[in-house]
Amino acid sequence: MSHPLFLQHQATLDLALQALRERQYWSPHPEMPSPKSYGESAPADGLTAFEALLQQDFQLDGLPPSQGWVGSERSPYRGALRIRYPRHDADALLNASAAALQSWRQAGPHAWVGVCLEIIQRLNRRSFEIAHAVMHTTGQAFMMAFQAGGPHAQDRALEAVAYAWSEMSAIPAHCRWSKPQGKHEPLVLEKSWKITPRGIGLVIGCSTFPTWNGYPGLFASLATGNSIIVKPHPGAVLPLALTVRIAREVLAEAGFDPNTVLLAANQHGEPLARQLAERQEVKLIDFTGSSAHGEWLESHCRHAQVYAEKAGVNCIVLDSTDDFPGLCRNIALSLALYSGQMCTAPQNIFIPANGIRTPDGMLSYQQTAAGLCAALEALCAEPAKAVELLGAIQNPDVLHRLEAAQQLGQPMLDSRRLIHPAYPEAEVRTPLLRQLTLEDRTIYQQEHFGPIGFLIQAPDSAAALRQVEDTVRRHGALTLSVYSTDPQLQQLAQNVAEHAYVSLALNFTGTVMVNQSAAFSDFHGSGGNPAANASLSDSAFVANRFRVTQTRRFA
Amino acid sequence: MSHPLFLQHQATLDLALQALRERQYWSPHPEMPSPKSYGESAPADGLTAFEALLQQDFQLDGLPPSQGWVGSERSPYRGALRIRYPRHDADALLNASAAALQSWRQAGPHAWVGVCLEIIQRLNRRSFEIAHAVMHTTGQAFMMAFQAGGPHAQDRALEAVAYAWSEMSAIPAHCRWSKPQGKHEPLVLEKSWKITPRGIGLVIGCSTFPTWNGYPGLFASLATGNSIIVKPHPGAVLPLALTVRIAREVLAEAGFDPNTVLLAANQHGEPLARQLAERQEVKLIDFTGSSAHGEWLESHCRHAQVYAEKAGVNCIVLDSTDDFPGLCRNIALSLALYSGQMCTAPQNIFIPANGIRTPDGMLSYQQTAAGLCAALEALCAEPAKAVELLGAIQNPDVLHRLEAAQQLGQPMLDSRRLIHPAYPEAEVRTPLLRQLTLEDRTIYQQEHFGPIGFLIQAPDSAAALRQVEDTVRRHGALTLSVYSTDPQLQQLAQNVAEHAYVSLALNFTGTVMVNQSAAFSDFHGSGGNPAANASLSDSAFVANRFRVTQTRRFA
Repeated sequence: MSHPLFLQHQATLDLALQALRERQYWSPHPEMPSPKSYGESAPADGLTAFEALLQQDFQLDGLPPSQGWVGSERSPYRGALRIRYPRHDADALLNASAAALQSWRQAGPHAWVGVCLEIIQRLNRRSFEIAHAVMHTTGQAFMMAFQAGGPHAQDRALEAVAYAWSEMSAIPAHCRWSKPQGKHEPLVLEKSWKITPRGIGLVIGCSTFPTWNGYPGLFASLATGNSIIVKPHPGAVLPLALTVRIAREVLAEAGFDPNTVLLAANQHGEPLARQLAERQEVKLIDFTGSSAHGEWLESHCRHAQVYAEKAGVNCIVLDSTDDFPGLCRNIALSLALYSGQMCTAPQNIFIPANGIRTPDGMLSYQQTAAGLCAALEALCAEPAKAVELLGAIQNPDVLHRLEAAQQLGQPMLDSRRLIHPAYPEAEVRTPLLRQLTLEDRTIYQQEHFGPIGFLIQAPDSAAALRQVEDTVRRHGALTLSVYSTDPQLQQLAQNVAEHAYVSLALNFTGTVMVNQSAAFSDFHGSGGNPAANASLSDSAFVANRFRVTQTRRFA
Repeated sequence: MSHPLFLQHQATLDLALQALRERQYWSPHPEMPSPKSYGESAPADGLTAFEALLQQDFQLDGLPPSQGWVGSERSPYRGALRIRYPRHDADALLNASAAALQSWRQAGPHAWVGVCLEIIQRLNRRSFEIAHAVMHTTGQAFMMAFQAGGPHAQDRALEAVAYAWSEMSAIPAHCRWSKPQGKHEPLVLEKSWKITPRGIGLVIGCSTFPTWNGYPGLFASLATGNSIIVKPHPGAVLPLALTVRIAREVLAEAGFDPNTVLLAANQHGEPLARQLAERQEVKLIDFTGSSAHGEWLESHCRHAQVYAEKAGVNCIVLDSTDDFPGLCRNIALSLALYSGQMCTAPQNIFIPANGIRTPDGMLSYQQTAAGLCAALEALCAEPAKAVELLGAIQNPDVLHRLEAAQQLGQPMLDSRRLIHPAYPEAEVRTPLLRQLTLEDRTIYQQEHFGPIGFLIQAPDSAAALRQVEDTVRRHGALTLSVYSTDPQLQQLAQNVAEHAYVSLALNFTGTVMVNQSAAFSDFHGSGGNPAANASLSDSAFVANRFRVTQTRRFA
């Protein structure tokens, strides 16, 4: 019943399962873009492969009959990519996916998991090519595009597959059930259980982390026997198109219908995602994007399980610290990283009106704010270094929000445009900081996605935490960062985090940022507040993607 | 971090976990109402305890201030029970539940699971008392009331608790996460994870299997740290009221607020279930009942996870058999058991127009039908024996459906009223069989809950299976029973079962009936067709009842 690809990757799977039990640091995917890990020629090969994709029609073998081509991606660094992808309407995609499902569903857990693990390994080998694709669609700087778009996304994929295997392998295939009947012969039934996929899974990608946010749902659904339609954001198709191509190659080589994984490319404004999501054949939907779109899916697509990551307002609360410079550096890094275009980036920074305690005595609110501003300015002082952290603005909406935010509250630190040494056209912006009060809820209780932070003066840190709990319960958040040396306040912060179902970071003064979350250890999203209705990944994320069909046979 | 009650029951829990992995027969709860298992005085004590409840106000200590009393249960055997239960409105219940939740949520998995296991053990000791309560609310005959209402329901409770423990214990409490940084010092974070319940769980009971269908949700939610409001069907309050009382006693003895488990009793027609379900504080809803009510919960209570078992149309397909008498006896038993008032009871029996194959040659459609009728008549021939199988009709709606069904299709076997030797007032009915054709979809594609079966003439058994697949995908079913000696048709039946997500029984000719499902082995409901959106029990049934709150601390 096993499968060659399963056997080939079983050792990795076993390590992944162990990592999930211990949640210690682990990854089989080197995160440094180093020739030592990926081979001497890997960096150049990856760049060459990426360049060869530009201005071409993106080929996928074995697709349904052509319905034309579509593509309008723009690199935030170097302008239009001029890549066109095969176009198919919802009917063509769903018919091909349903046909592929018929054989895929019969293959069974070993084949599903083996194929997924092989795809992930091949994705890893292509990390440089994918890094360029991520960089030139999302605007991430190269290092981040490599890590978050490559190995870290592959980690999240493997994590989802490991959870899927864990859940599926807990169900035995058969047993001879024998129930004692006292002096009489026992009752005997031959029982068997078959893992049965839900049907067609739809993955709706986002424009900022197409692979990192897309892989968990894609691999959780594929590893549980479902066929997949990947609908990338029209602004970031290439990273997922490459993923789909690699998946299709592995499927075809293993003797399966490549249409088990399909690409649904569309133009900005074309309602392909909704057309697909509304169809009854679609049983699983994984979505990352706006709250409006996510809530529409949740309320209109009752025929499907919807796993949605939506907007949120991540908060920082300052109370006290024994490392003020470390605090400032860490927060500045968190705000600057990819210009705040992260679902985990902090937005609201609450500072007590009478300041924060440090080993050198109280720092006033103004001194605290000034420290944060100085750290941000230092971080962005050298454009050549800063752009490697800030990346570029992904789309004009972010620029519009940044401009609008300049009218909110009171000024604190202006956003500046930096000139990228290699890409002078790129829209590079340093983070904007505005000052608000606790009463400005209408401003800070919504997400201002981009390089926008608010310093919010609070009566004290406990009041700030109470406000955070209310905000997060109503409007969602993935992260809460608290700086305090006071065990009582730390406990209060933990209570708030539990009641608001938000991940808490305490006293992050090193180089780990609250924005970052590590597969096999950190749960990304709790699934308990409006920012996300699921966690990447946990048992609940995979256990309902399949059902079990039972056969009892009288023996 | 452990808890005395957890340690006390840990051995049972370990056995339950092992049983779930193997799905072999197992139960710690003796299913025979025998003094050898339950003690010499147990039968008499149980009856005495039950009789002492009648015509009394049902006392629960530590409740919110009284808002009066309510109760209108009627024994299908002996008339009004005249028991009154404390009445509280939605506000009073939710406030008390929210208050109790504050301490319960902090107790942690060992305490939650330990308390649940102690409750289940005490329920087991009270099986005789609960059996009488089940019998005199549902109309089940005593043996069934004892088994399904007592030990089998306790098995399902323990199964849900075991799944809950399995999921919660897979999350470590903490770890020192250390990420190598090449030549530099590793990045170190102290991480901790806390199991955080969803909030308030609402359990909406049914009138036919108040404990068997109510316990899985109740214990799955309680074992994951949620507080519980049990809203029984107004026609079957007592079994769940006893359960709530026992739960509250264990909670209080263990030092917890007894209002962690509350009873929400109401009169027929009072919309207390909806009033509770609509409230945002309710995060989990477990429901068994009509499709209309279940679908209302699913579409209106988006703030909660809704686990709903609704109506379905269970089918039997006849193709061939090497034991026709065994086939007839088994189907007759399935139809007669508790007068078909079971969510798993068969309703639609498809018979090929040219009959079925047997070792003695073909039996015509008429001969096959006659065999089934004869078996049913034999089973119901002696009223004194028959009533122990049929039980009594639970409520007048079933009688009305039975009367209406006498106009459907063509006659086959009439329903007769039997006089119960001990309870002459009881409405006891033998199963009605009507004949339909494959075209009578408007009749057989809906549930006719009660002692109503249809013999449906089909062109052949393959056509019957195709019709079954369509029916079950549209209208749901928990069980499909197929009789065939042909491996190809058996395979077709398995394909149909997989596509319709229905549990398949093959060639049941012994004393195990398709209606029965055994905890720790059989999945009750697949969660994949309209009859139920969840399975009792599997990982998916428990994994989303809690979330994990993570704290990362810079070390």
